[in-house]
Amino acid sequence: MYIPKNLQMTASSVNQFIHEYGFGCLVSANLTCSHLPFLFDEKQNVLYTHLAKANTQWQALAGQKVLIIFSGPHAYISPSWYEKGPAVPTWNYAAVHVIGTVSLLSETETVNVVNQTVEKYEPSLLSELDVFNDDFNAKLAKAIVGLKIDIMNFEGKQKLGQQRSRGDQQGVLKALQQGDLEAQLLATYMQKHEIGVG
Amino acid sequence: MYIPKNLQMTASSVNQFIHEYGFGCLVSANLTCSHLPFLFDEKQNVLYTHLAKANTQWQALAGQKVLIIFSGPHAYISPSWYEKGPAVPTWNYAAVHVIGTVSLLSETETVNVVNQTVEKYEPSLLSELDVFNDDFNAKLAKAIVGLKIDIMNFEGKQKLGQQRSRGDQQGVLKALQQGDLEAQLLATYMQKHEIGVG
Repeated sequence: MYIPKNLQMTASSVNQFIHEYGFGCLVSANLTCSHLPFLFDEKQNVLYTHLAKANTQWQALAGQKVLIIFSGPHAYISPSWYEKGPAVPTWNYAAVHVIGTVSLLSETETVNVVNQTVEKYEPSLLSELDVFNDDFNAKLAKAIVGLKIDIMNFEGKQKLGQQRSRGDQQGVLKALQQGDLEAQLLATYMQKHEIGVG
Repeated sequence: MYIPKNLQMTASSVNQFIHEYGFGCLVSANLTCSHLPFLFDEKQNVLYTHLAKANTQWQALAGQKVLIIFSGPHAYISPSWYEKGPAVPTWNYAAVHVIGTVSLLSETETVNVVNQTVEKYEPSLLSELDVFNDDFNAKLAKAIVGLKIDIMNFEGKQKLGQQRSRGDQQGVLKALQQGDLEAQLLATYMQKHEIGVG
């Protein structure tokens, strides 16, 4: 990804981003793509995911290099929001790209990935014995395939107008806050990360 | 993309989706990706975009096959929202994938693409002579590269729980409407398209 230095995420921001925006795009070199939830093991520098066995993308993945795209909020930016013109419109966004190598997981490992994914999003479900019991897990393991992706490199970009004047940034933030839900999501992101907020 | 038949978008839905969610990911077979705004010429079955000349992805694109990913709203779906259990959690989303072949545009064509992009998002800017005047366009043409992508095929998926019971759908919709901004975006999408709303 083309990342001017001033728009580059730090490594710790990238890590945090993957945890928060973990529903990503798994792209193979044959330009197939699946939208999947990913787990990130920072210590091992590994991503995990799982997909339906009926999704044939997994069949050509073992040992292959893949791209995983994690996308945050994005919105159109009007130059009319800037303090001073003339200027051109643009699109602001935050995204992380990961390149890694895939291994297919065993049935037991795959069930573990599913359990850890549930643990991340709604841990209370794991204690409800009528859902993830042994019978269910055994059926699940036949229907899905787990993937481990050893991360070779990652990069993150936050294009949020942080290079602009304080007045421009404040105008953009205010307009986004008053915009549609997508614009509001971007404004919330900018405020949380204190980037481009004047 | 793995698309069970009941989750498949119609061709006209795909077209509408590309117009509405036109900020997409351009992915090359070397697994490079840029986040860019796309224009869709339905009659010619062509996508247009432009990127900074400093973004080296364009250098290996002429004549090459690319994937463009257009992503709509997405959100975690808890099985606790369903009328009847037990069930597992999932992630709902809408997305369109396009495969096409790239041609690099001339400077004049590239300026046209930029003008048409502005025409789409904020046409009033084109009549402000202090922005897109001839001098500016000449400088712009040196700094960016326009791409034309001849579409070979496209596919769209709407995974919105439309196969579930009416009660389950209504529970999901209500929970999404009361959720965070991302959940609300998905609920708005489902209502607009009348899919998965019970």
